[in-house]
Amino acid sequence: MTYDSNNIFAKILRGEIPSFKIFEDDDTFAFMDIMPRADGHCLVIPKTPCRNLLDATPDQLASVMSTVQLVSRAAISAFDAHGATIQQFNEAAGGQEVFHLHFHILPRHDDIKLRPPGVMAEMEMVKSHADRIIAALS
Amino acid sequence: MTYDSNNIFAKILRGEIPSFKIFEDDDTFAFMDIMPRADGHCLVIPKTPCRNLLDATPDQLASVMSTVQLVSRAAISAFDAHGATIQQFNEAAGGQEVFHLHFHILPRHDDIKLRPPGVMAEMEMVKSHADRIIAALS
Repeated sequence: MTYDSNNIFAKILRGEIPSFKIFEDDDTFAFMDIMPRADGHCLVIPKTPCRNLLDATPDQLASVMSTVQLVSRAAISAFDAHGATIQQFNEAAGGQEVFHLHFHILPRHDDIKLRPPGVMAEMEMVKSHADRIIAALS
Repeated sequence: MTYDSNNIFAKILRGEIPSFKIFEDDDTFAFMDIMPRADGHCLVIPKTPCRNLLDATPDQLASVMSTVQLVSRAAISAFDAHGATIQQFNEAAGGQEVFHLHFHILPRHDDIKLRPPGVMAEMEMVKSHADRIIAALS
């Protein structure tokens, strides 16, 4: 499987389409999922091309996981969550829809189930949730 | 949250209870999930104490992810799978049941859903699936 540089996360990285950015460093980028399955649902990706876990380099994995940890802690704090679920999908059979490596971070509360997938949220709400995570990161 | 050294994965690491081991290196250990949600469902853990993603060290994350990648590739090959789903749960609200950091690797096939959680498999089947992954790793 090859990397298609026209996937939407590559376009987000190039600034060709907008996103609600919450964190960025030299190697990674984190932004909100606009179809959140939980309040604060966000994504972490490497800045360099990589289809998924199967073709990632050790450096890509290490830097992405470092940011996943950082953002998970902040998202839990921002939403007074009780935990977090991390998901990472590889190929369509594995649940992958955008073919640029990404980790889902889902802040979780006791007794609150995930919302169904594929439902677009109100953008004002997503923006306000991004702001909460940004504040927790600072 | 603190680490409880009597969790079942710590006992597996100490050899106090059995497991179907598929891989081991200096820093990580991989073995079969005995309640598999897909054929070849297996787990990767660090050998050192760590409750979950939230308290993991950079070294623990890097070594575990390296093994997750290695074992994912082998499990996909072993089961002629079309992809893989990776899950990692933090705290009970996040889905965590054993409080030692672990990543789930679920080989996936097109149009085959995950089985329900919490159903114990036949041990002979789990053993045969472990053998297939071990063969793919060698």
